[in-house]
Amino acid sequence: MEIRGAGPIARAVAQGIKIEAETSAATSTDSFMEHLKEAARTLATARPTAVSAPNAVRFLYKRLTSQMKEGKELPELKELAIRSSQEFIEFSEEATKKIGEIGANRLRDGDLIMTHCHSSNVLSVLTTAHNQGKHFEVYCTETRPRLQGLIMAKKLRDVGVSTTIIVDCAARYFMEEFNHVIIGADAIAANGAVVNKIGTSEIALVAREARVRTMVAAETYKFHPGTMGGELIEIEERSPREVIHDTKEFSQINIRNPAFDITPPEYIDVIVTEMGIIPPQAAILILTEQYGWKISEKEPWE
Amino acid sequence: MEIRGAGPIARAVAQGIKIEAETSAATSTDSFMEHLKEAARTLATARPTAVSAPNAVRFLYKRLTSQMKEGKELPELKELAIRSSQEFIEFSEEATKKIGEIGANRLRDGDLIMTHCHSSNVLSVLTTAHNQGKHFEVYCTETRPRLQGLIMAKKLRDVGVSTTIIVDCAARYFMEEFNHVIIGADAIAANGAVVNKIGTSEIALVAREARVRTMVAAETYKFHPGTMGGELIEIEERSPREVIHDTKEFSQINIRNPAFDITPPEYIDVIVTEMGIIPPQAAILILTEQYGWKISEKEPWE
Amino acid sequence: MEIRGAGPIARAVAQGIKIEAETSAATSTDSFMEHLKEAARTLATARPTAVSAPNAVRFLYKRLTSQMKEGKELPELKELAIRSSQEFIEFSEEATKKIGEIGANRLRDGDLIMTHCHSSNVLSVLTTAHNQGKHFEVYCTETRPRLQGLIMAKKLRDVGVSTTIIVDCAARYFMEEFNHVIIGADAIAANGAVVNKIGTSEIALVAREARVRTMVAAETYKFHPGTMGGELIEIEERSPREVIHDTKEFSQINIRNPAFDITPPEYIDVIVTEMGIIPPQAAILILTEQYGWKISEKEPWE
Amino acid sequence: MEIRGAGPIARAVAQGIKIEAETSAATSTDSFMEHLKEAARTLATARPTAVSAPNAVRFLYKRLTSQMKEGKELPELKELAIRSSQEFIEFSEEATKKIGEIGANRLRDGDLIMTHCHSSNVLSVLTTAHNQGKHFEVYCTETRPRLQGLIMAKKLRDVGVSTTIIVDCAARYFMEEFNHVIIGADAIAANGAVVNKIGTSEIALVAREARVRTMVAAETYKFHPGTMGGELIEIEERSPREVIHDTKEFSQINIRNPAFDITPPEYIDVIVTEMGIIPPQAAILILTEQYGWKISEKEPWE
Amino acid sequence: MEIRGAGPIARAVAQGIKIEAETSAATSTDSFMEHLKEAARTLATARPTAVSAPNAVRFLYKRLTSQMKEGKELPELKELAIRSSQEFIEFSEEATKKIGEIGANRLRDGDLIMTHCHSSNVLSVLTTAHNQGKHFEVYCTETRPRLQGLIMAKKLRDVGVSTTIIVDCAARYFMEEFNHVIIGADAIAANGAVVNKIGTSEIALVAREARVRTMVAAETYKFHPGTMGGELIEIEERSPREVIHDTKEFSQINIRNPAFDITPPEYIDVIVTEMGIIPPQAAILILTEQYGWKISEKEPWE
Amino acid sequence: MEIRGAGPIARAVAQGIKIEAETSAATSTDSFMEHLKEAARTLATARPTAVSAPNAVRFLYKRLTSQMKEGKELPELKELAIRSSQEFIEFSEEATKKIGEIGANRLRDGDLIMTHCHSSNVLSVLTTAHNQGKHFEVYCTETRPRLQGLIMAKKLRDVGVSTTIIVDCAARYFMEEFNHVIIGADAIAANGAVVNKIGTSEIALVAREARVRTMVAAETYKFHPGTMGGELIEIEERSPREVIHDTKEFSQINIRNPAFDITPPEYIDVIVTEMGIIPPQAAILILTEQYGWKISEKEPWE
Repeated sequence: MEIRGAGPIARAVAQGIKIEAETSAATSTDSFMEHLKEAARTLATARPTAVSAPNAVRFLYKRLTSQMKEGKELPELKELAIRSSQEFIEFSEEATKKIGEIGANRLRDGDLIMTHCHSSNVLSVLTTAHNQGKHFEVYCTETRPRLQGLIMAKKLRDVGVSTTIIVDCAARYFMEEFNHVIIGADAIAANGAVVNKIGTSEIALVAREARVRTMVAAETYKFHPGTMGGELIEIEERSPREVIHDTKEFSQINIRNPAFDITPPEYIDVIVTEMGIIPPQAAILILTEQYGWKISEKEPWE
Repeated sequence: MEIRGAGPIARAVAQGIKIEAETSAATSTDSFMEHLKEAARTLATARPTAVSAPNAVRFLYKRLTSQMKEGKELPELKELAIRSSQEFIEFSEEATKKIGEIGANRLRDGDLIMTHCHSSNVLSVLTTAHNQGKHFEVYCTETRPRLQGLIMAKKLRDVGVSTTIIVDCAARYFMEEFNHVIIGADAIAANGAVVNKIGTSEIALVAREARVRTMVAAETYKFHPGTMGGELIEIEERSPREVIHDTKEFSQINIRNPAFDITPPEYIDVIVTEMGIIPPQAAILILTEQYGWKISEKEPWE
Repeated sequence: MEIRGAGPIARAVAQGIKIEAETSAATSTDSFMEHLKEAARTLATARPTAVSAPNAVRFLYKRLTSQMKEGKELPELKELAIRSSQEFIEFSEEATKKIGEIGANRLRDGDLIMTHCHSSNVLSVLTTAHNQGKHFEVYCTETRPRLQGLIMAKKLRDVGVSTTIIVDCAARYFMEEFNHVIIGADAIAANGAVVNKIGTSEIALVAREARVRTMVAAETYKFHPGTMGGELIEIEERSPREVIHDTKEFSQINIRNPAFDITPPEYIDVIVTEMGIIPPQAAILILTEQYGWKISEKEPWE
Repeated sequence: MEIRGAGPIARAVAQGIKIEAETSAATSTDSFMEHLKEAARTLATARPTAVSAPNAVRFLYKRLTSQMKEGKELPELKELAIRSSQEFIEFSEEATKKIGEIGANRLRDGDLIMTHCHSSNVLSVLTTAHNQGKHFEVYCTETRPRLQGLIMAKKLRDVGVSTTIIVDCAARYFMEEFNHVIIGADAIAANGAVVNKIGTSEIALVAREARVRTMVAAETYKFHPGTMGGELIEIEERSPREVIHDTKEFSQINIRNPAFDITPPEYIDVIVTEMGIIPPQAAILILTEQYGWKISEKEPWE
Repeated sequence: MEIRGAGPIARAVAQGIKIEAETSAATSTDSFMEHLKEAARTLATARPTAVSAPNAVRFLYKRLTSQMKEGKELPELKELAIRSSQEFIEFSEEATKKIGEIGANRLRDGDLIMTHCHSSNVLSVLTTAHNQGKHFEVYCTETRPRLQGLIMAKKLRDVGVSTTIIVDCAARYFMEEFNHVIIGADAIAANGAVVNKIGTSEIALVAREARVRTMVAAETYKFHPGTMGGELIEIEERSPREVIHDTKEFSQINIRNPAFDITPPEYIDVIVTEMGIIPPQAAILILTEQYGWKISEKEPWE
Repeated sequence: MEIRGAGPIARAVAQGIKIEAETSAATSTDSFMEHLKEAARTLATARPTAVSAPNAVRFLYKRLTSQMKEGKELPELKELAIRSSQEFIEFSEEATKKIGEIGANRLRDGDLIMTHCHSSNVLSVLTTAHNQGKHFEVYCTETRPRLQGLIMAKKLRDVGVSTTIIVDCAARYFMEEFNHVIIGADAIAANGAVVNKIGTSEIALVAREARVRTMVAAETYKFHPGTMGGELIEIEERSPREVIHDTKEFSQINIRNPAFDITPPEYIDVIVTEMGIIPPQAAILILTEQYGWKISEKEPWE
């Protein structure tokens, strides 16, 4: 099964570590840690763009290694690995809830909102606002090629939000009347640039052209510590078959399918995290709060 | 059969008038002209956005009425109506060829070009340049919801142009490296605004953001005389089923499907017409050349 | 009595020439023409910014001088001067009506419109649209220092248009939701720059920032032929007492009170004239249509 | 008496708490704190836009509650409440002085400066620079509807600064020659957006268009901690009579009178606080320095 | 001797044709015309960017061929060729004078003006204004690599204009205080784009950023008729030795030396021609006035 | 000998202090410190724009004064002063190396890069990337008036990087195809504005116009603590003879030669420091990390 979305990926990684810990046959602390490290390496690097995966590993290794210094024995260490994994999963779910509350504060009765792709955090913002009794309408782009926007539309309909579907490139046609663009994020760089589903940067530009403000909803574990050291976030390019089913008919024609694009910070009004609202240029503040200024540390899986 | 594209529509209108003239059982000049007028009315107004249809009618009525003043009899008038229709069709085809030559002059070896939707004029520009031995690459957006971009891609491949397909909203991801955006037009307003397939204005904006110049390829019969008198070009909104096949699954969700959008003149570098290259702000010059300053004339079909 | 507004000024000039012609005691063609010339000089140059005054004189001298070449005698000339003046007045009123019709075509049900100052042409657009049964709302700035916006608001209320008053610098606060800014003009330069009531350029900029399009409603006799020859339109600076009644309280403080500002063409979508709609960059087309390319002719009053 | 200006409001709140403490008849710590809380609630929420009021309360409660933990008795607590209130007032005055010094450093001989409305901090900057012997000129907008700009102009004249008054919407007419726009603030949000007197955002936009840099002068207690949790700053809408004295004459006409608008961070060069100069995007740094990342704390008056 | 500047080139071409006519040993009309044609071909195409050369040829061939239709004999034809050449030279000099008068009208006392490179038309504008008694200052960029700006500075000094020299890339440092950028042109395209000395487009952009308006001074024979048919204006790339004298020291390093760049129409306020002032988007109006809509005619030298 | 470049200046200052310490004949702690202070004063203030000089002094005084509190005797103090100076020099060299590594991470095979002037940090980025086996090309502007760009070009050639030289104002001509602009810095202000060689801001603007991102490479000791207190960074204006060798030929002509200009933060994508990558708006974060919020401290040399 293929997991989609940076939040679910992060939780799946934590779950994977948890299972590894639960099922490990290691008999020494060292071999247990080696097992975990191997699992971490595989899980953290499986998807190139989603920084949430290595960040989930960093989260629980921070807990593990601080305990190891205290000289914990194997059974305790196992239990700690399992508990830390579980804690990350709970923290992740709690973060989405918190983001929903903060983001919902910014919506008002009568708002017209555009979103792109499917994002649990955006859904949390909209559902929370709806549950507070606010009346607003949401336009969902279909989000080619995988049509996650249609999933978003159905989820919004199911909670009772007034919802409209448009094709992706109709965003500018409708933008003038909108009050907000709200989007999720797969990764956020040290300079506040936001990596999200292909098309996001285009909608943010179209919003900026019409003085409509763009809100990004993202947990702090989407912030990419490696970008502080100059690392570029790799944009995954996916199968042409997502774009063209019958590629034979299109033989000799090249098909490019980047899954994400990069929205520069100047097109973003605020990033809503579980820690609070920041302007994109303060992404570095979140990163230094979490990881300090250490830019080329050994990773847990190295 | 549903005809698509403003050029084919215009030629179909001329063909319709021709058939009407050929098959008319009218026995007097007056009743013949009444028949034609009725045909003209139907044909000119069938598709709200395409100004090429009424412009085709205006083209041949100009010839007809100037002859009528000279007191032509019915048989001569019939023959004239047939000949004028045929002339429009030939003029239309010749215009596309001429646009191809002019536009091709602006391309150079090594160019990277983006286009959107399918347009005979854009195809003419690209094919002419290719036949001149110029080497360049073209990126075609798929052009949701009807995927005319895929037709464009196949036609370009078939003539031997190096072609790539992308989803519509990936335009900004790739734009930085491009040299040209080339697009067609369904209608052009007195202030130089260009009505074309939904998504065009977004790509033109994305091009402007990256200092890539946008070329519009359009015959002069795409220029809308009514806009001189304040008329707004109606944007056709088409069936939701073009966007969502199984609308039952999306019950209670609204689907909006405007077929065109409007690119403001400030995002367009040049319009290539069969008369030559103009900046968009000189659209009014084309209109006054063709129709004078008479802004509220009786139409041929009124 | 002080006349305000470039249209009324133009008609007053024509009226002045008419009275001069009617009451002239001249006994020869030459002395009659000398009287007229003197009147023209005074009337055409009384208000520095309003080009409508000299343009009114140019309008009727064109008729007069073409007749003089045909060797008209004094009584005929007198009558012609009176008739030409009357014709200008009628032409002027008709132009405003025509502009109303063309501009009204561009409005739609549900539009939210901002205007600034009082303008007969803007009033004509709004009243015509209202009389066509269109429902829309208009925000009038108060238009300091002379508060002509309040007059505009009352006139709109009196014809039944839903109207709101705001202070001038609240324009940006409300702009996001608007569909149109519609303004008049005192003079239009060869490059399409529009001279209008102080504050206009600021509102046009604020509109541009929010992708709201600005429509200028102006008769062709507002286009300034001298600007083709490099002439700068002088901006009248009026009494400080218009800004501060009790200037004693503000002794030693400078008060600046320019009556007009200049909106650059790139902030204007269309100019609605009685001849039709043009983009601002086609102002030169109107000027050459009316005055040819002769840029340094002797003026009628020289 | 109605107090205007976010600084005076804050000091009035502190004064109010001080009086409450001085005159409280409470006989127990608990009832004393209850009295203070009630006073705080009333004072902190009286004016919707001015965050300086609740921030003043937060300032002195921080001191109070830290002392209470140390088990202070009622008389000491009373004295502490009085002293803390007094300290806030002194801190507030000192902050304005410090802002004056820092801001004055950025001015040079020959500068031409525009300001809008009346602000003690801006006055402090200008007066300090003037007292340093710098020669510059200041243009004050009149600042409709309450004409606080005229007060500013008189205060500047009285200290000997060369001063000019203009109507609000003449800002763009004069902007090209200016070196600085300097404005105050009523509240600053977590993303660096500045809430200030209606018209401020328009002048900042006009400045940006002409590459003139805008400096905001504001104490750190104008930074709004609630915005970190998504709270929107409410824009007070005041009486129509401020705009139109004789509303009867304008019956059936709506009058809108928002007292403030929001300047986005991208139009602001620097914010001068008593702690030093920051770019607007570092507002979050000031907020986390002062309030930590705690985004949904119980307020002192709750 | 190498001639520089599009005006001198044009006059040299006319002079060349004149000499050819004067010294031709042709004994028949046909062979005379053949001689002229050969001369025209060489002269018109010697410098790739300067359209003034072929335009000079077009100017006098228009006169020649209209006379030939009237059946002129060889001696008369010779004389006509000589006279037409002389007429072009006089027309060219007169045009520069006229441009000086028109452009000077736009300058005012106290103006601060930036120019780039050396241009006879710009010099004419500045000298005319100076001779009218206007006081202004001019900043000349040095204009690498050939330092024509230094020539300009010396000429301005010699007529008594207050002049300052700066390095090219200091334009932005000084721009804020300027009122005008005034530049010449080597060629102007159908969409209003201006080809001029390398660096021009950069200064025009820097001016636009600071709301300083750019005026182009150019005779109508700088307008490029071929661009109506899609022709691209070739940018001449000159010897690396203009940039680096001792290229041996820089062996293995590439040196690029384009002599011109292209300023897009949106960065230009007005073009001052001898026919009057136009916005750049009306370049097409000049072209159609001069050459009609005929976009692919046989050239005189073909 | 005149030292150029903010890094070398800083190291020369440290070296100067070191020599002072080594050669001091002081016999008491007090007189030793007085000697150092005098040296520091001279060295820190010799070059107005380069903040690296006083920052070098601040660096080593921080170490010195913390030791003095511990009651160190003269010999130890001497040794400490020498060691601290040496440490700064090593830290400075290490920082450039670190910046090279971080910046190099952001380059990719096939990149086209523009740089301006000579900068050790930029050289470090490019050399590191080249040594990693990345293939890219660099365009160096010549950088008038002192032509440091030619030095840069030669150094790049010598390490084997493919290099091209252009004149400064050709930047816009070539910019469209570029992927990066990379520049150094002489000083960075609290709001993220970057002071660097004259022309930098123009190239950054030209890059922004074409959606090319600008990277600044600068050690943290280029950040100017005084700007937090409102200090303006003085732009050194150097000898006219740098621009014009034979000034006699240009008598009566003014020559302006500012050595630096200021790039506003909105034109900069990232600043690469040895601590990691930050957006320009986070410059204040670096400053408060290093110097706290103390904005008007006594300097070591006061």
